[in-house]
Amino acid sequence: MSAGTRDLILDTALELFHMNGYTATGVTDITRAAGVPKGSFYHFFDSKETLAVETVNRYAERTQVGILRDPSRSPLERIRTHIDLMISLATAGGSPRGCLLGTFSTEMPSQSDSITLVVNARLDAWTDQLALTIAEASEAGEISTHSDPRRMAGFIVAGLEGAFARAKVSRSRKPLDDFRESLFEYVLN
Amino acid sequence: MSAGTRDLILDTALELFHMNGYTATGVTDITRAAGVPKGSFYHFFDSKETLAVETVNRYAERTQVGILRDPSRSPLERIRTHIDLMISLATAGGSPRGCLLGTFSTEMPSQSDSITLVVNARLDAWTDQLALTIAEASEAGEISTHSDPRRMAGFIVAGLEGAFARAKVSRSRKPLDDFRESLFEYVLN
Repeated sequence: MSAGTRDLILDTALELFHMNGYTATGVTDITRAAGVPKGSFYHFFDSKETLAVETVNRYAERTQVGILRDPSRSPLERIRTHIDLMISLATAGGSPRGCLLGTFSTEMPSQSDSITLVVNARLDAWTDQLALTIAEASEAGEISTHSDPRRMAGFIVAGLEGAFARAKVSRSRKPLDDFRESLFEYVLN
Repeated sequence: MSAGTRDLILDTALELFHMNGYTATGVTDITRAAGVPKGSFYHFFDSKETLAVETVNRYAERTQVGILRDPSRSPLERIRTHIDLMISLATAGGSPRGCLLGTFSTEMPSQSDSITLVVNARLDAWTDQLALTIAEASEAGEISTHSDPRRMAGFIVAGLEGAFARAKVSRSRKPLDDFRESLFEYVLN
């Protein structure tokens, strides 16, 4: 069995967890959707839990937090591009799926410590990077507010996660478009 | 079997859904935790799904959105009190449990249309009431911003729901305290 099979299982699991959540997705659902025998799952992964930790890391890499460090754009332009990318990722292919980190934030604390810890670490790293970029935007005079950048970054991440959840439950991207407009009106101004 | 038993099943289910989510909570978990025979569940409820719709309504009543209409306080004071009450409700008894509406927002769309619809309707009603109170605060000169109150209310509800999720995954109330501080600094000022 090839590394390609392992990758296919990971991507399929990420898709199913993102859409349906962790508890509602069984190992059989994953192998069936990936079109691989169930045995190949346990060849590559110890458990659904260790696989889920890997999907969180893979998802976090796709959110392209790195764009917040892109030296070819101004700090505020980097934040705009990053927010737009996050919204595209959540709304690609029809009904908004929300954010995997947000979905797992409410689902995992009662189910798995290891998944809870990796989700929290990824949210922290994202918030830290956003805080650095906010501080740069403030120094560059692109935003007028000079309060604690870490607290402001936490407020933005919370708002975006809440807007993802609202888009998912209302089956509409309007909460995300409204969030974007409000963010630049109230906070990043 | 008494109405008290029905009420006990409802309250127990609400507690378990709030803590562990819908999919991870079976009918047997509910009847065992309530200390009632499994048969009594189906005497009162058609299914776990119809029960969950009722728990959403019960939870929404407890969030005391009505306080946003309290004529004995100024509009901004009502918003402050409401936010504080929501935070108390989510942090009562140890580790933050988040908000049932937020948890169900990401979990239910792939599982149940009827639960998704009631969660969305309750979030809409909450946002509408908050928008009315924001408009009153704006008219009374308690806040300086005069942009669309409905969009501002949506931004606040999203931020609060995101902060609930972050408090749950970080097992800390700090995201909620930070949210409160940022809200009155950036938005309701």
